[in-house]
Amino acid sequence: MTTDTRPKTAQVEVDIAGATVRIGGMCKGSGMIHPNMATMLAYITTDAAVEPGLMSKLVKAIADQSFNQVTVDGDSSTNDSFLMLANGAAGNEPIGPGSTQAEQLEAGFIQVARDLSRAIARDGEGATRLITVKVREAASDAEARTAARAVASSSLVKTAVHGGDPNWGRIVCALGYSGAELALDRLQLRVGGLVVFERGAGVDVDLSAVRRAFEQPEIEIVAALGLADGTAEAWGCDLSEEYVRINADYTT
Amino acid sequence: MTTDTRPKTAQVEVDIAGATVRIGGMCKGSGMIHPNMATMLAYITTDAAVEPGLMSKLVKAIADQSFNQVTVDGDSSTNDSFLMLANGAAGNEPIGPGSTQAEQLEAGFIQVARDLSRAIARDGEGATRLITVKVREAASDAEARTAARAVASSSLVKTAVHGGDPNWGRIVCALGYSGAELALDRLQLRVGGLVVFERGAGVDVDLSAVRRAFEQPEIEIVAALGLADGTAEAWGCDLSEEYVRINADYTT
Repeated sequence: MTTDTRPKTAQVEVDIAGATVRIGGMCKGSGMIHPNMATMLAYITTDAAVEPGLMSKLVKAIADQSFNQVTVDGDSSTNDSFLMLANGAAGNEPIGPGSTQAEQLEAGFIQVARDLSRAIARDGEGATRLITVKVREAASDAEARTAARAVASSSLVKTAVHGGDPNWGRIVCALGYSGAELALDRLQLRVGGLVVFERGAGVDVDLSAVRRAFEQPEIEIVAALGLADGTAEAWGCDLSEEYVRINADYTT
Repeated sequence: MTTDTRPKTAQVEVDIAGATVRIGGMCKGSGMIHPNMATMLAYITTDAAVEPGLMSKLVKAIADQSFNQVTVDGDSSTNDSFLMLANGAAGNEPIGPGSTQAEQLEAGFIQVARDLSRAIARDGEGATRLITVKVREAASDAEARTAARAVASSSLVKTAVHGGDPNWGRIVCALGYSGAELALDRLQLRVGGLVVFERGAGVDVDLSAVRRAFEQPEIEIVAALGLADGTAEAWGCDLSEEYVRINADYTT
């Protein structure tokens, strides 16, 4: 039984020390999706030659910046897997930790993993809109991840997006209860590129423009916390009547 | 702006050392409800004479066993308050900590607070059913509270209840990801009085009877973890299309 409505694949080519390295990925998952991790299967392969120790280190780092930041319904699952495989067919010198090549490889993996993560959120059960939450200037990357996940997980943010309702109060509230450090007077909040909150208060913005931003198939919420340089992204989707129907009528 | 559909009050009389003490409570709240605490106002008054130190201690203990165990939609709020007031009109000797009278008073407060908590869950936005989750035999009371809240908060449990779908797998899964200690082979799960899971597996139970239990206006889920003597309750409601409509069409 799966509620995925489309195949999800992503690929990228990276030039590493003269060799062209290919990275490809595929995944499934649309409901029971929440960090850590989800009812989700994800596989990323590369033809790069990579030392096993580096692959072990990368798989955790990549997951934390991609699949562990996807939420559809707040329910995590025991039935998940994320595998990364490298077969060395590209003919490059094996890549070890701490090298420039390792950084290039990691950037490629992250791009593929994030493309797949977005595809899962976009195909979330009953979803009509993809929500991308970017948190910047947090006290740390870990706090940024926590804050971004809280906004993407909020039922009230998700229903506001579903209704095309530019309710920034719900976003600020989710940031507040996330547990991440927050100073309201330093927070700047943008929705679809429009500043809606800064210096501790809502901005006198053209509400119809914000509403149009909230009605797009992809919504970007950017919260700059003004504290330090922690950054993260999280991906989610709107909460629709269709989500309820899919999961209320599901037969065991 | 409130989405409460009915007034919520509760009262009890307690006989304490020959004096009849009255405890009354009222509250509001129906959406943006999640520990700790909620968009919720709750006031409990008594005519008992109580030492201020005991009242301060009780207010936290009562909240942890009542209002902090109510969830409607997973969103907590900054706009909440819970006050307990005592005016001494009952004419009893002032009650201090550590006494039998303090225990009697606490039992009365808990009864009123839990009645109010259930009333909030029952009147949750879009709710058609009250879900009571009782966790017993947990490693500690704190773990029992965590486990009970996870089940009551799960979108998948909430939609299953909405659909009258006796899906115990979703309940076991929420217990599993709650973070509370769990040994599947010791877990016994009852829904509406029927054992649906024990000794590590689903029970061959009359599914139509379970389905009838899931279709009642009040659903009781009891999880006996078989570990120690930690107990707790949590209260929630089903997740309906109406919840989405209320929160998607809400206008700022």
